Amino acid sequence: MDNVRVIEVKQSVFADNNAEADRIRRQLKENKTFLINLMSSPGAGKTTTLKRTIADLKDELRIGVMEADIDSTVDAEAIAAAGTKAIQIHTGGMCHLDAGMTEQGLRELGAEDYDLVVLENVGNLVCPAEFDTGAAKNVAILSVPEGHDKPLKYPLMFQVCHALLINKIDVLAYFDFDMEKVISYAKMRSPSIRIFPVCAKTGEGFDAWEDWLRTETSAWNGGV
Amino acid sequence: MDNVRVIEVKQSVFADNNAEADRIRRQLKENKTFLINLMSSPGAGKTTTLKRTIADLKDELRIGVMEADIDSTVDAEAIAAAGTKAIQIHTGGMCHLDAGMTEQGLRELGAEDYDLVVLENVGNLVCPAEFDTGAAKNVAILSVPEGHDKPLKYPLMFQVCHALLINKIDVLAYFDFDMEKVISYAKMRSPSIRIFPVCAKTGEGFDAWEDWLRTETSAWNGGV
Repeated sequence: MDNVRVIEVKQSVFADNNAEADRIRRQLKENKTFLINLMSSPGAGKTTTLKRTIADLKDELRIGVMEADIDSTVDAEAIAAAGTKAIQIHTGGMCHLDAGMTEQGLRELGAEDYDLVVLENVGNLVCPAEFDTGAAKNVAILSVPEGHDKPLKYPLMFQVCHALLINKIDVLAYFDFDMEKVISYAKMRSPSIRIFPVCAKTGEGFDAWEDWLRTETSAWNGGV
Repeated sequence: MDNVRVIEVKQSVFADNNAEADRIRRQLKENKTFLINLMSSPGAGKTTTLKRTIADLKDELRIGVMEADIDSTVDAEAIAAAGTKAIQIHTGGMCHLDAGMTEQGLRELGAEDYDLVVLENVGNLVCPAEFDTGAAKNVAILSVPEGHDKPLKYPLMFQVCHALLINKIDVLAYFDFDMEKVISYAKMRSPSIRIFPVCAKTGEGFDAWEDWLRTETSAWNGGV
């Protein structure tokens, strides 16, 4: 595709990923760029959520997107088609992004030109949670068909996240999914986590999620 | 839980995982134990599929189960409640099992007493595909809500699998899922892959899957 730039990132050369992530975060703060790290299982709805969020907020905020994937440019093409600058990060088989890989993406995107940058991490509930990318906030999506027990089985993901979207609530009737249980399990991992039940396909619940995103971006950027 | 034995496995000490996996496979062949490595995203339905398969085949085959998880014993309890010997393997945060970890599980289970052993790997479409566990066959489950583009985005998982269950076909009407496309994408990764559309909740499509499993077990075990 001509409209999507693909970069192949290499595993970080930095021995201390956390120190590198802190350095990136300070730089982003200085540049007034709010970076969120969006994580989920494969197929939970990261790209669909992102497309709708961009459509709703693009007149208020300058938004850039980094799509990480092992292979393919499926997602970056979808985002670019929505009219937003998107780059595709290929991890070369790696199951997550670390701070150094994120920084290569930020540089390629020209992150300083954006109020809000979204990093769509590799679809995986395990490994991405282990690496601080330098993002200001971590956001996870859990979809109804995956089941309400996931915070019990993938503890770290829910522990490191500041916000959790429960996606695909339009199909709640067809699955054995207990909303009260998932909320209590998620809060067990992270007591202050903000939880937004949504449907990325219909837009249900997006007002509250976008309010949160707007407020957090503004707070980080110092009232942009 | 008293009815579930939990073992904490350590990352393998073997430098060459493939050589170790081959050694395990030879031992299993000698003992007439057919090992399958069951992989999928979180929430695709590994445990539900397994419970139904066990219920249908337990009078014909001696079946043992190893449930791998980062934390919790949710799945092993569910399998044990179905009346089958199950052990819980805790990976200590690891995102996959390697051959050495699998061998620790096989020893703890007493694998030589079973015709069929199922290893339920950590829910993850990336890392488990990279490590040969010593299983005779790799089986993946992809569920309808995850979307038909997954073989494009997680190529290795589909490449290493001998069989693919497309689960949750009962909700096909509620998702934009193209069965013809997913079959063609999966065969692009692995031309000889056997594909079984199923619903683990209702049992639809299980006859074909269980026929395959019965035939493969019998072929491996030399006509048990």
